[in-house]
Amino acid sequence: MFSNIRIVLVNTSLAANIGSAARALKTMGLRQLVLVDPKVFPSSEATALASGASDVLATARVVATLEEAIADCSLVIGASARSRTIPWPLLNAREAGELVQLESSKHPVALVFGREDRGLTNEELHQCHYHVSIPSDEEYGVLNVASAVQVIAYEVRMAHLMAEKGVVAQKTMPLAHAPWDEDIVPVSDMEQFFTHFETALIESGFLDPNNPRQMPARVRRMFSRLRLDRLEYNLWRGIFSRMQAMASEITQLKKG
Amino acid sequence: MFSNIRIVLVNTSLAANIGSAARALKTMGLRQLVLVDPKVFPSSEATALASGASDVLATARVVATLEEAIADCSLVIGASARSRTIPWPLLNAREAGELVQLESSKHPVALVFGREDRGLTNEELHQCHYHVSIPSDEEYGVLNVASAVQVIAYEVRMAHLMAEKGVVAQKTMPLAHAPWDEDIVPVSDMEQFFTHFETALIESGFLDPNNPRQMPARVRRMFSRLRLDRLEYNLWRGIFSRMQAMASEITQLKKG
Repeated sequence: MFSNIRIVLVNTSLAANIGSAARALKTMGLRQLVLVDPKVFPSSEATALASGASDVLATARVVATLEEAIADCSLVIGASARSRTIPWPLLNAREAGELVQLESSKHPVALVFGREDRGLTNEELHQCHYHVSIPSDEEYGVLNVASAVQVIAYEVRMAHLMAEKGVVAQKTMPLAHAPWDEDIVPVSDMEQFFTHFETALIESGFLDPNNPRQMPARVRRMFSRLRLDRLEYNLWRGIFSRMQAMASEITQLKKG
Repeated sequence: MFSNIRIVLVNTSLAANIGSAARALKTMGLRQLVLVDPKVFPSSEATALASGASDVLATARVVATLEEAIADCSLVIGASARSRTIPWPLLNAREAGELVQLESSKHPVALVFGREDRGLTNEELHQCHYHVSIPSDEEYGVLNVASAVQVIAYEVRMAHLMAEKGVVAQKTMPLAHAPWDEDIVPVSDMEQFFTHFETALIESGFLDPNNPRQMPARVRRMFSRLRLDRLEYNLWRGIFSRMQAMASEITQLKKG
């Protein structure tokens, strides 16, 4: 029932945490673990701490980059403890559970957790549609990574059980509730989208590649929030191409 | 604010679990730990895993029996994974959090967790007013004791936050939660925005004004969903103007 939901651990240092996380997600009925560039894996320590969840470790996928881990996902939620310079759409753990419940029947969903000491980098957080934060003590808010997985996975399960009972979340989440007429494009299509957009802006003389300032991050945030459907995606690609064509026509005309 | 709430661990075998539990409860703003007849305490392993929560270990009370740990409490809730021969009033984790929230302002409350391998004995469970169970996978429901503490303490904190903010806060949209760095533009600014966009697309030769088909409606829907902030709004207006400037430059160059 949770076959579309994966837990992604980025750059985990301690083998014990991988094992504990595997156990945590399995207790909540999840099964899919993806490890992005783990320090040590597989390891006997992870297996020991996984207890009865060694099957989760055995089927865990190891990849080199976050991009690979989330390529086919249409909803990516990244755990974030700190407040960021550019705020991102933010969910608490309960809202994240509800959103995953609403969407995981439609497309693959990733819940992403960062390093023990410093979480996810800003660049990694910018690849997420939403950030999730577990409400915690103001002075001591550092949950162990396996504990964070436990709480979020628990909320996913609770949301599922509530939905089964007919207790539907009353919140309005953009796109989540609405039956949409077009598919949402997966993350893997968005990298070339951003590259195309930036190239078009540079060729049009709108963006200085040597001094982009915050613009690429803001564009990323904007489109992450939007989560384009296929038709919208194609519309933008067409507009970017048109901008490039105009820029190149100007260059040609100037040459004579 | 949680001064009336204590976490009680009965007969814990592994020092590491005591340390992890201390960390877990402290992240949720709790401070009181009572250890009933622990196998090893204090220990360097517990302190290592407590991370920044060694103060919780330092002030932990060690007692010989559960009776001593809960003597002054008017609400005692015991963690129970299995269903028992004699059914007891049973709460799920969320309900337990809500009950603790309702009562902890009035009198001391204990949340009791059992041994790693077999939880609380029937006799111990019968000393509790309620049992609490964390909804878990039917085939693999064994949460690590520190993970169980984490989830229950999280629900206590959530219930507290909900009571503080009111349930209405839960029903708002994700964007409303995030402290955003820029104002969201009012709807009144969007009409000229759409006109500007369409004009730019027409002048660029991308949109046929005599046959726009569904495009204006789709563009409207897309930006309504997005709810632009002021900086994003200005960014787009700049891009539209740049498209118009390119189109007009092409016209000029062709003339001359």
